Amino acid sequence: MNAVPTSPLRLLLVGLGPLGRIIASDLYERRLGHIVAAVDSSPLLAGKRLDELIKTPDPGGVEVLVSSSAAEIRNWSQIDAAVVATASDLRLAAPVIIDLARRGLPVVSTCEELVWPWLRHPALAREIDEAAKRGGGRVLGTGVNPGFLMDTLPVALTAVSKSVRAVSVHRIQDASTRRIPFQQKIGAGLDDVAFRKKIDEGTLRHVGLGESMHFVAHYLGLTIDRWEESIEPVRAERPLPSAIGPIAAGLAAGVRQVARGYTRDGQSERLVVNMEFQAAIGQTNPHDRVVIDGDPNIDLVIRGGVHGDVATSAITLNAIRSLTEAAPGLHTMATVPCVRFTGLKLRVKPPSLN
Amino acid sequence: MNAVPTSPLRLLLVGLGPLGRIIASDLYERRLGHIVAAVDSSPLLAGKRLDELIKTPDPGGVEVLVSSSAAEIRNWSQIDAAVVATASDLRLAAPVIIDLARRGLPVVSTCEELVWPWLRHPALAREIDEAAKRGGGRVLGTGVNPGFLMDTLPVALTAVSKSVRAVSVHRIQDASTRRIPFQQKIGAGLDDVAFRKKIDEGTLRHVGLGESMHFVAHYLGLTIDRWEESIEPVRAERPLPSAIGPIAAGLAAGVRQVARGYTRDGQSERLVVNMEFQAAIGQTNPHDRVVIDGDPNIDLVIRGGVHGDVATSAITLNAIRSLTEAAPGLHTMATVPCVRFTGLKLRVKPPSLN
Repeated sequence: MNAVPTSPLRLLLVGLGPLGRIIASDLYERRLGHIVAAVDSSPLLAGKRLDELIKTPDPGGVEVLVSSSAAEIRNWSQIDAAVVATASDLRLAAPVIIDLARRGLPVVSTCEELVWPWLRHPALAREIDEAAKRGGGRVLGTGVNPGFLMDTLPVALTAVSKSVRAVSVHRIQDASTRRIPFQQKIGAGLDDVAFRKKIDEGTLRHVGLGESMHFVAHYLGLTIDRWEESIEPVRAERPLPSAIGPIAAGLAAGVRQVARGYTRDGQSERLVVNMEFQAAIGQTNPHDRVVIDGDPNIDLVIRGGVHGDVATSAITLNAIRSLTEAAPGLHTMATVPCVRFTGLKLRVKPPSLN
Repeated sequence: MNAVPTSPLRLLLVGLGPLGRIIASDLYERRLGHIVAAVDSSPLLAGKRLDELIKTPDPGGVEVLVSSSAAEIRNWSQIDAAVVATASDLRLAAPVIIDLARRGLPVVSTCEELVWPWLRHPALAREIDEAAKRGGGRVLGTGVNPGFLMDTLPVALTAVSKSVRAVSVHRIQDASTRRIPFQQKIGAGLDDVAFRKKIDEGTLRHVGLGESMHFVAHYLGLTIDRWEESIEPVRAERPLPSAIGPIAAGLAAGVRQVARGYTRDGQSERLVVNMEFQAAIGQTNPHDRVVIDGDPNIDLVIRGGVHGDVATSAITLNAIRSLTEAAPGLHTMATVPCVRFTGLKLRVKPPSLN
């Protein structure tokens, strides 16, 4: 079994917002490959040199200019795969994904709704799948959450299960160590009125809890006859220092979002999937936890939790190889071979494996 | 997305030892399918009716007779998949696996060495792979350990990793709750001389620690230049009651086995994979733990651990569907789609997925 380095990846990056830029920087930092084309629809970015936008440019020099649309790309034959880091809403992300899938590329996207697109956009899911199958492309939505901690991990854990009655997943984060945009996104420092206003505007919600729930339910054969989702502030119990300024007691330190899915059981209902997401400044005992009620019972805890800023970019890049090994079509994290760390010292599979 | 039940599985079971019988009972208890052929080379079993050997027979009646060899099987066209639960040593398990793979069947085996056959039997691995590819068969070695807790789970966890420097895995079990044969297998009640004798005979060793280590190292791109394995008794610190009789202080309560893999780093060596397996009667704080030294650091604990007796049979049956979805050839737990609980209410994938 030889350790043969594979060729460096030639990547098309669509979306140069904060997450897209982290992904680009990480690609170079990890020496996984090069960005050979970049697209962002923002007029502020089109025409810019990619190496002006990212933190860790290629030491060999990045001379890629940002295109305002994929239609401007000329070097398709030099592209091995694409990452789409644009919108959480699949309706916004889908057109470029469909275009790239039709061209036969493997496409990994951070679009939260694409983790389980059949929940809110079944017609788009069908369209993406058909485009990919026709063109020989492959499409996968992933991320740390949704995409791994609250869906793929619980499903993978049931490999050892003889029965599964219910699944409960908890992601409790201390936002103190996260980026300022994340702290703002979770409503830290807001009073109840401002907090509610941001919820109503749709700018505060963690997108993907329903997707994670339906992913888990689908793969474990749990029927969701009814589900509900709630969102509320986590209020500071005492004044809290924070990177975005001091938070007075009583104001929001963050957000708590809960989704519950029920199976009808005769006249009553039974809770089969419980999802709890909480991110707040000053949160004590941050952790990720998965509880499988079944045979055997399983109680998994990741102490301290998985830090989201690093992990989201990491899983996006790590997923590319697994997706490339899958058949053409629309995939999920459960239908591709095990997504895992992709190292600098890339190794091919043993010669005897496909 | 419709929930369409798939047809019940028609299984060939090779090996009707304790584990094979649990697998057969679980298949019926979980209503996943039927055993349509059974093989065991023991003269004590050949010709017996399967339903005399298993705990949970098919309510519809099990009228399968145990054949002494696969050569006696006549109903090949009625077999969807095979489980091989015979030997830990791949040299003993391989002939029937190769035969079944050549016939085009998906074959899941509990053979510990098959979890990573390239460590001790690279030529056999190649032969199995070639037979499977020629015949359209698929082969997978799995189990709870090796097969999941100390290899697949740590690898899957690094989906969120930007870097991985080292991996440490710990499986600490309280044998008090396990079957008597397991308690005997781990040397409980033996003095040092008898314990050492069983090690020398090769009957005490947990098979698979080296396989798990090399599985992890391979998929995470960690180079093992040298590795070592140690095995020693865990001695009872005080008299212990147990199902196999009281254990005096100082005698073995169980076994502790450690494997360490090192990468050469200039003049020195660096520990990159650490595997610790401990199973003893009266063991306090049983747990499974995976520590990823990387970015991010990850510290995962399964409180109480995963109970091996239930889980080994469960993962063997759960793996069949994932293996069926993979391409022909020899596979590992990292090259098949996510192995997960396979429910009574079997569901097919969303119509848009392959």
